[in-house]
Amino acid sequence: MAAWLDEHIRVIPDHPEPGVLFKDLTPMMAQPKVFDRAVGELAELIQPTKPELILGIEARGFIFGAPVAQRLGIGFVPVRKAGKLPADTVSVTYDLEYGTDTLEMHRDSVTAGSRVAVVDDVLATGGTARAVTDLVDGLGATTTALAVVIELAFLGGRSRLGDLPVEALVVEAG
Amino acid sequence: MAAWLDEHIRVIPDHPEPGVLFKDLTPMMAQPKVFDRAVGELAELIQPTKPELILGIEARGFIFGAPVAQRLGIGFVPVRKAGKLPADTVSVTYDLEYGTDTLEMHRDSVTAGSRVAVVDDVLATGGTARAVTDLVDGLGATTTALAVVIELAFLGGRSRLGDLPVEALVVEAG
Repeated sequence: MAAWLDEHIRVIPDHPEPGVLFKDLTPMMAQPKVFDRAVGELAELIQPTKPELILGIEARGFIFGAPVAQRLGIGFVPVRKAGKLPADTVSVTYDLEYGTDTLEMHRDSVTAGSRVAVVDDVLATGGTARAVTDLVDGLGATTTALAVVIELAFLGGRSRLGDLPVEALVVEAG
Repeated sequence: MAAWLDEHIRVIPDHPEPGVLFKDLTPMMAQPKVFDRAVGELAELIQPTKPELILGIEARGFIFGAPVAQRLGIGFVPVRKAGKLPADTVSVTYDLEYGTDTLEMHRDSVTAGSRVAVVDDVLATGGTARAVTDLVDGLGATTTALAVVIELAFLGGRSRLGDLPVEALVVEAG
């Protein structure tokens, strides 16, 4: 499907827990032509949705989101774990398989009426992406697209994101 | 000193603890021309040291390090908090003001004899940067430079880095 990329994704069995085949993207980041192409394709995929800002999700989403923002000539906004952002924030707490997690954005980082695209490394169950789109909604802004390097389609993440356009460079069917 | 940049750095009093004036770089990331210029200048400053890879330090260092690597046409390697990297790692534990912290890199991410530059958002006491250069040394590679957006010179970080070239877009004297 994307042979130029697949060969630079490392599969780690039983990480972070038994039975999971973790897709490690660090080898592709170390290959400048591959990393450059991935960022360029992510940027091209979301450009038609006309975002004015890129939101990157801590921490691996920063590695793709910041260069995608630069490629599109638009700003970058970090979405961070609880307690990391220094100014006034909005936050969302969402369920994980075990327990919960919280993400935060600066309240003034996205203005009402603006259009933002979200970038992350992987779309799995969609819980994190949905939490971020909820944050964006709460600020009166619009999420135009979610762009990820890998979509783990067998986990059904798209179904939690309504009609949000989801763009992925690699889709893992199962 | 760098008026184009200074006006997009937000000072947050008493963060993360009383008496600290935290320099928040999120406003500059949201301004595409400013963010683009910062990344371009960081890349230009370290290019003469001929790095073959950029190491970015989790998490804010990812936001600058990944685009700097792309600007230079070289690979990107994340240096992460303990337990985040899925494959075989090398790690270093170092002292913070209170307690310790641990950073890890994939053991195969930097080959012996290679040249790497380290990118982070801020140089403060130099503890983190020194830990990363120690990791690089331990792998038989050479750190060619440290590039940061802001150097808090009054904290003396350079003195912990031997003769490593340190490049900063903004130097805060006190």
